[in-house]
Amino acid sequence: MGQRPGDLSAPARLAGPDEGIGADELALATRNHGLPLEALRHDVTPPGLHYVLTHYDIPYVPDAGAWRLTVDGHVRTPLDLSLADLLSFPQVTTRVTLECAGNGRALLTPRPVSQPWLVEAVGTADWTGVPLRRLLAEAGADPAAVDVVFTGADHGVERGVEQDYQRALPLSVATGDDPQVLVATAMNGAPLPPQHGRPLRLIVPGWYGMAQVKWLRSVTVGDVPFTGFQQSVAYRIRRTPDEEGEPVTRIAPRALLVPPGFPDFMSRTRVVRPGPVRLSGRAWSGQAPVSSVEVSTDGGAHWEPAVLDPVVDGHRWAWRAWHHTWTATPGEHAVGTRASDADGHVQPLDQHWNRGGLANNAVCFVRVVCVADACWP
Amino acid sequence: MGQRPGDLSAPARLAGPDEGIGADELALATRNHGLPLEALRHDVTPPGLHYVLTHYDIPYVPDAGAWRLTVDGHVRTPLDLSLADLLSFPQVTTRVTLECAGNGRALLTPRPVSQPWLVEAVGTADWTGVPLRRLLAEAGADPAAVDVVFTGADHGVERGVEQDYQRALPLSVATGDDPQVLVATAMNGAPLPPQHGRPLRLIVPGWYGMAQVKWLRSVTVGDVPFTGFQQSVAYRIRRTPDEEGEPVTRIAPRALLVPPGFPDFMSRTRVVRPGPVRLSGRAWSGQAPVSSVEVSTDGGAHWEPAVLDPVVDGHRWAWRAWHHTWTATPGEHAVGTRASDADGHVQPLDQHWNRGGLANNAVCFVRVVCVADACWP
Repeated sequence: MGQRPGDLSAPARLAGPDEGIGADELALATRNHGLPLEALRHDVTPPGLHYVLTHYDIPYVPDAGAWRLTVDGHVRTPLDLSLADLLSFPQVTTRVTLECAGNGRALLTPRPVSQPWLVEAVGTADWTGVPLRRLLAEAGADPAAVDVVFTGADHGVERGVEQDYQRALPLSVATGDDPQVLVATAMNGAPLPPQHGRPLRLIVPGWYGMAQVKWLRSVTVGDVPFTGFQQSVAYRIRRTPDEEGEPVTRIAPRALLVPPGFPDFMSRTRVVRPGPVRLSGRAWSGQAPVSSVEVSTDGGAHWEPAVLDPVVDGHRWAWRAWHHTWTATPGEHAVGTRASDADGHVQPLDQHWNRGGLANNAVCFVRVVCVADACWP
Repeated sequence: MGQRPGDLSAPARLAGPDEGIGADELALATRNHGLPLEALRHDVTPPGLHYVLTHYDIPYVPDAGAWRLTVDGHVRTPLDLSLADLLSFPQVTTRVTLECAGNGRALLTPRPVSQPWLVEAVGTADWTGVPLRRLLAEAGADPAAVDVVFTGADHGVERGVEQDYQRALPLSVATGDDPQVLVATAMNGAPLPPQHGRPLRLIVPGWYGMAQVKWLRSVTVGDVPFTGFQQSVAYRIRRTPDEEGEPVTRIAPRALLVPPGFPDFMSRTRVVRPGPVRLSGRAWSGQAPVSSVEVSTDGGAHWEPAVLDPVVDGHRWAWRAWHHTWTATPGEHAVGTRASDADGHVQPLDQHWNRGGLANNAVCFVRVVCVADACWP
């Protein structure tokens, strides 16, 4: 009797100095999943390999034909649209790299207790849908409005607050063309899978995952700033619990490596043979185009430039391939990579710690052991 | 210089009494993923929600047309088949529930240190392919042979042994018709996704996941028992490190629940309102058809029978749906379910511990808090 949300939701906290991953973090790690890093080989991430983060449950939508999307609030003509209605608008396809704002969290010291991502919370897909600004124009959104609020069908409790997942974008972003925000109905040319928002989701190219509202049910134009949980409590950069903090917005630059050679099952240590090893991977930034990628095979003491492959078909919002040849010598190596973008952002070697473990893009190193054949049984 | 496999691979071990999940276990949990339990609502698991366990890396196969499958060893006529060759044989589709042999491992005390599954390492798909016995007949397998060895393209080191992933089946199982083993080329009507074995995999209905060799390259008929790592070292039920142990084969019965209500983000505790709550889920056994499912809402003190839905279209090897109506009252409840099969196997309430954490099917309970609306802010 008399249960209250505080009984269900522990407050946000930091792990102790030697505290292993807890049962709560493991339950999240088992549900949500990253991109296995060898899948960085694919230009477009095949279904099931793209990262997935769901705050609550994946809604069950057996009949996508019955789904409705409303556009309301400070508009001239509210809209109530079916999937068929949305498909009757001109469709746009954009290749977009999405990354969770909490990527890298489990590598931080101290570790914020939440979904314990290492560095794999990323993926790239071709998203097809209707430009949001087309729908806002159709509805006649008030040009003096402030925020546009997006509500998903996913429902739960978070730090004591029962909620539908909601996020907002400033009207200028929602109606902008750089990036052009989409209400997406297809991923890689097929209807959205359940875990990616079936049947509708928002795609905001260049922004971290919290902006990409899945299972989208309503778009509400507001004349005051949105102060919902996911906007004003979660997804803010804070070093102390009481500060207002800076909102998380666009993706900071990051480069990742296809782990070379082959792995040891349990440690994931990589094994290579002596001689030339082709290193390759992807790099991205939501802040500006990637301008360079560097590789280090000695834990960051020395860096060499990688070759950046050309941008494919003008895909400004997708990751960019890079490669580099390394001559491996017997022994142990710490192999890493870092990206810079055209606005001068460079991946840091040291963590930029904050309480949420958000927007962290510190360089990571992969342990690679080069073994001469003669030494192997 | 002189690195040896022992330097890469730690020996198998058990976690200490209060040891949290380690960095190595977390790296596996982030790569591999379970079925989010709300996806038990789907008869056939949509792509990306089915569990995935990869021992090493997912092989990159840009051109499935270049793939070859050899059938050799003690055969009259060795075969060297392309994907097109395989598709020219009559195709069979079977709906199969697959479960990892290590499902439930992270709930054991003491915890074997390996992929730290909770209970979500399961999924059901329609697999299409050529019956293996058709290929073995085509090759003229020696009827006096003992084991048939299956080799995948996934390569790595495990406990100091460099290997391609290999498993064997007795010839009688490989050529049997209950279950009928498939060399599968399609999952849910589409080519296999990379993480499920693109372009070819074995499907052994009713057996745990270790038998379902992915990225299948060769089938070798042998006249002696196969003693490879995954057959004689891994995947054996042992209570002490030195015993020979029993091999893991068919799936023990298990029932799982769609978690009712909605979750708290961090604890995954479920919230329901007072009144009737429809509980539903799936139950399966690779040993015999499921004969009953029971539900407890008080942590196992009392059990009530659930309604088993009819077997759909004769799908003997797929999970079976069940449902039960529970009248929730305010307070905290431990809700669980257990399956029995026609051979008299019943899910145990207590763990059957072994060093690998294999074939464990102890009943699990979900924490559900029933909150009267008046108590919610």
